[in-house]
Amino acid sequence: MKKKNKKVNAAILIIGNEILSGRTQDKNVSFISNWLNERCGISVGEVRVIPDLEKTIIKTVLELSKKFNYVFTTGGIGPTHDDITAKSISKAFKVKYRFHKEAYKILENYYGKSKFNDGRKKMAKMPSIAKLIYNPSSAAPGFITKNVISLPGVPSILCSMIENCKKYLLKGLKTFSKTLNLFTVESNISKQLGYIQKKYKKDVDIGSYPFFRLGKIGVSVVSRSTSKIDLAKVKKDLISEFQSKKIKILKI
Amino acid sequence: MKKKNKKVNAAILIIGNEILSGRTQDKNVSFISNWLNERCGISVGEVRVIPDLEKTIIKTVLELSKKFNYVFTTGGIGPTHDDITAKSISKAFKVKYRFHKEAYKILENYYGKSKFNDGRKKMAKMPSIAKLIYNPSSAAPGFITKNVISLPGVPSILCSMIENCKKYLLKGLKTFSKTLNLFTVESNISKQLGYIQKKYKKDVDIGSYPFFRLGKIGVSVVSRSTSKIDLAKVKKDLISEFQSKKIKILKI
Repeated sequence: MKKKNKKVNAAILIIGNEILSGRTQDKNVSFISNWLNERCGISVGEVRVIPDLEKTIIKTVLELSKKFNYVFTTGGIGPTHDDITAKSISKAFKVKYRFHKEAYKILENYYGKSKFNDGRKKMAKMPSIAKLIYNPSSAAPGFITKNVISLPGVPSILCSMIENCKKYLLKGLKTFSKTLNLFTVESNISKQLGYIQKKYKKDVDIGSYPFFRLGKIGVSVVSRSTSKIDLAKVKKDLISEFQSKKIKILKI
Repeated sequence: MKKKNKKVNAAILIIGNEILSGRTQDKNVSFISNWLNERCGISVGEVRVIPDLEKTIIKTVLELSKKFNYVFTTGGIGPTHDDITAKSISKAFKVKYRFHKEAYKILENYYGKSKFNDGRKKMAKMPSIAKLIYNPSSAAPGFITKNVISLPGVPSILCSMIENCKKYLLKGLKTFSKTLNLFTVESNISKQLGYIQKKYKKDVDIGSYPFFRLGKIGVSVVSRSTSKIDLAKVKKDLISEFQSKKIKILKI
């Protein structure tokens, strides 16, 4: 078995006025974040949503690419004037923005020479140092530039491509989680949670999230850790505390 | 009529490990963004999602509060150990973190003296300079500290409180939008869009977003502007371009 002992992190950078304006509800963050953790043991440490502005993209890409092992950008790699991700990343890393030969061929084959217009050709232009991330749904590839992975914004296309990112990524420690659902309110258990969180310090991260179900108020207590052993200990401690307070646990 | 001639902007700061981990799908960004534009003429220029870490919260709050007219934080104002928004904002602005007298009274009345435990009392602690944002659903108030508005993470509670933020906000120019839905692909219209975008420069922001409907691929062309007159002009130009290319417009 391969040894996996590194903490690897990533940021997600959503590029798109349509998310900022509230017109479109983002669906990519939770998908990418779950995929990264499940499949690669990479945890997402920050998300940003920024407008389609070259200066802002350049600044943010540089900042996040220094701060995290990987940056996943979504959006702005289509054929229209507001698709400026590839050009902006080229400028950020001071490399040429030019046709990628293989991407050009892929797109030319897909559309056929007669329908391969300028808009479609634009999707083959990317940073000179970029490597391709193949797209099984609609041909136009994503790409990786240094540690920045650029994917499209349309969720169904992004989903179909994400496995093709895997070969470029270091694998890290997967974060496991355990959830206890209780029919109680947060303020009833805050003391106990605080006490148990202190006991396990940074090894386990305990969060509590109110929910409404069957007309009742409840709380999900979620513990997250890279260690299954620590998680089991925390679960035992939590259950013992809740039972001593006669709080009903919905599912163990 | 009151004169509205300012551009007013805001950032949204989502504080919460549950969004970063992908466990919870954020619903607050699009709600807040639409509300701000519709009701206050404030446009959202950036969104960040960060973990429940004091240092990160302090740094990000300070950065965004300098960069934008307002910062809306969501999450981290409940009764448990991971609710550290109020304390972190106090530290960010170097003011005391202490009981807000009115908030204390509100919560004491709501729960009754005998059930007003430490967890619930914690929700009355906030930056000393904070003013309250009343909460008609579950009593615990949000608050505004300088230009930073702190709201809870639970969408239904946040929704019920948002109108109470209004009195603290400067009103700006509302952004209007027009959408044309076409049965075509982006690369078929990219040239025309680019040309029209250039013509109107920064007065109108034109975006194109692919969609799938009735088994067909389509594109929504969305124009956004603070000027209804410019929007009408753009719409006319777009329709004329699309008609000359015999592209079917679904709804005008």
